[in-house]
Amino acid sequence: MSEFRKSTITGRWVIIAEERSNRPNAFRHYPIEDDPAESCPFCPGHEQMTPAPVLTYSAPGGTNSAWSLRVVPNRFPALRIEGELDQRPSGIYDKMHGLGAHEVVVETPEHQTDMAHYGLPQMVQVFQAYRDRMSDLFKDRRFTYVLAFKNFGSAAGATLSHSHSQLIALPVLPTQLEREIAGASKYHEFRGRCFFCDAVAQELIAGERIVVQNDHFVAFTPFASRFPFELQIIPKTHGAFYWTLTRNQMEGFAEILRDVLRRYKLALKNPPYSYMIHTAPPDYRTPEVFHWHAEIMPKLTEVGGFEWGSGFYINPKPPEEAARILRELELVMNVPERHLLPSPKGRTYGY
Amino acid sequence: MSEFRKSTITGRWVIIAEERSNRPNAFRHYPIEDDPAESCPFCPGHEQMTPAPVLTYSAPGGTNSAWSLRVVPNRFPALRIEGELDQRPSGIYDKMHGLGAHEVVVETPEHQTDMAHYGLPQMVQVFQAYRDRMSDLFKDRRFTYVLAFKNFGSAAGATLSHSHSQLIALPVLPTQLEREIAGASKYHEFRGRCFFCDAVAQELIAGERIVVQNDHFVAFTPFASRFPFELQIIPKTHGAFYWTLTRNQMEGFAEILRDVLRRYKLALKNPPYSYMIHTAPPDYRTPEVFHWHAEIMPKLTEVGGFEWGSGFYINPKPPEEAARILRELELVMNVPERHLLPSPKGRTYGY
Repeated sequence: MSEFRKSTITGRWVIIAEERSNRPNAFRHYPIEDDPAESCPFCPGHEQMTPAPVLTYSAPGGTNSAWSLRVVPNRFPALRIEGELDQRPSGIYDKMHGLGAHEVVVETPEHQTDMAHYGLPQMVQVFQAYRDRMSDLFKDRRFTYVLAFKNFGSAAGATLSHSHSQLIALPVLPTQLEREIAGASKYHEFRGRCFFCDAVAQELIAGERIVVQNDHFVAFTPFASRFPFELQIIPKTHGAFYWTLTRNQMEGFAEILRDVLRRYKLALKNPPYSYMIHTAPPDYRTPEVFHWHAEIMPKLTEVGGFEWGSGFYINPKPPEEAARILRELELVMNVPERHLLPSPKGRTYGY
Repeated sequence: MSEFRKSTITGRWVIIAEERSNRPNAFRHYPIEDDPAESCPFCPGHEQMTPAPVLTYSAPGGTNSAWSLRVVPNRFPALRIEGELDQRPSGIYDKMHGLGAHEVVVETPEHQTDMAHYGLPQMVQVFQAYRDRMSDLFKDRRFTYVLAFKNFGSAAGATLSHSHSQLIALPVLPTQLEREIAGASKYHEFRGRCFFCDAVAQELIAGERIVVQNDHFVAFTPFASRFPFELQIIPKTHGAFYWTLTRNQMEGFAEILRDVLRRYKLALKNPPYSYMIHTAPPDYRTPEVFHWHAEIMPKLTEVGGFEWGSGFYINPKPPEEAARILRELELVMNVPERHLLPSPKGRTYGY
């Protein structure tokens, strides 16, 4: 029997409709493509194919020129760093100059790997790079927000296969964050507590939507999941700003995110996915209200006219069932790491 | 140079970033699949494969059992018509019973055709069926809204290839409509006029975003288009409710929608697309404020982490350029209709 569920924080309704998963082709399988390394602009030796880096981490014990991570401006930027905001009308419409920054985090020199296969230090470097770039970009007072996100696989929006994520600095607060912050504020006014802290507490007691947890983080399928197998990773300790996370917490984040990506790979046959980090903006004045977190969405279905036209989402996989499937992989994942590596892209693990 | 543009009506920001269209694989081509007619539940002779119809139009001059259009309940419904709304808490969350209706409009008995190839009477029948079903569904006072929409091609969310559209009756007003109505109300309070009437007037004067018009309708690319080649079709005469459209207007709507679908087919190589009808809800008390319209979106790009995480959209094709490309097909489209028909699915026209 289907059910409407409302996201307390965004006000968004979703329809959890398990019957729909019986349709022919209800879930699709999108292959992960592989670009040739010879022409890959993110491979070592091809550094001249990208703009000059804004951040480089050296490979430990490598030669002077060996790097383990680079951040470069996007060659095809959605936004540019020059100019002022300059909001102005165009008849009844509004527009402004495309001010911002668009950077690419080349997460590893290795062409043939993906995040689910990283060692923990490599994972930690990526999250360190987000933090370092956010700190630097926020020195520019024209930027209100920086969104860190990753697309894996072309069906999730990636145009290159070499493992990378992106940062977009924006002069205005994104709508999605505006809504989450407004939802969190309303909840805080009414209950006097952080919604996300309450959600973590309720989820841990109920257990049915928990996928995995460690000392610092919990990963669960949201009550009002828009998409099958959508996940949230929330720090157990309250904190509004991503960039205040300690080294220990960052290791915990690296560990849990890699864990859920491996679960996706095993349970969903190496699906494309996107993740994004939702932090409070730097000028946020009520840090007790908002709680930073990550959202992760595998691409298994298409969004169509109903979703675009209504703003509602039909999710054919109840989040409780998605969580159970991902959670029950636990034992399988306890094999030694060397059995997980290396695995060619586009394949599931060989066991 | 990229540009932020704001939708006056939804408040949504988009980033028009032409540079992004130079990326490798910026636009994708999704093939239109074809299911075998033998197992198609929408083909004549297979009527027992669907639930009993809620509406049937007879084929003119056909035998008693010949139909030209059928509306049947969806075999895999997102919502069901039984029960009460029954909103209730689940700890800090809210849920309610999946009350609603989910119907399929089988638009034609012909398995091998698509809407761009319909004769005008067939087009008109489809829009007549939306109206008839809305009237009937709104007799049920539990329903607040009916969304009529169509997905063409599996990449746009269709699971069967036989030409069809869908109706979903909802017990709550969809978020997207809520936002459009709120935006239109704000504009009306401030300017004392209908936003959509003003938009039509401004677009017709500017001309640069117009694709095609007839006596009753105008089709243009919205100033803040989320997606490449997205279109709106707006009636030139103010009207809040889709179902008040006269026979003449319905013919005008059929003509202009078929025209833009043919332009998509020619210019974009038979792309998947979705369209949806946005009408005011039946209990709407200020019909001078809202203006019904259709939105049409071809599927040419993927939505990724930036869009999901920010609620902003990056559109690599300026709507002025998209409109020019579609508009300049005019002469090509003036060939006699027999040259357009029949054309196998998955191919562009042969000239």
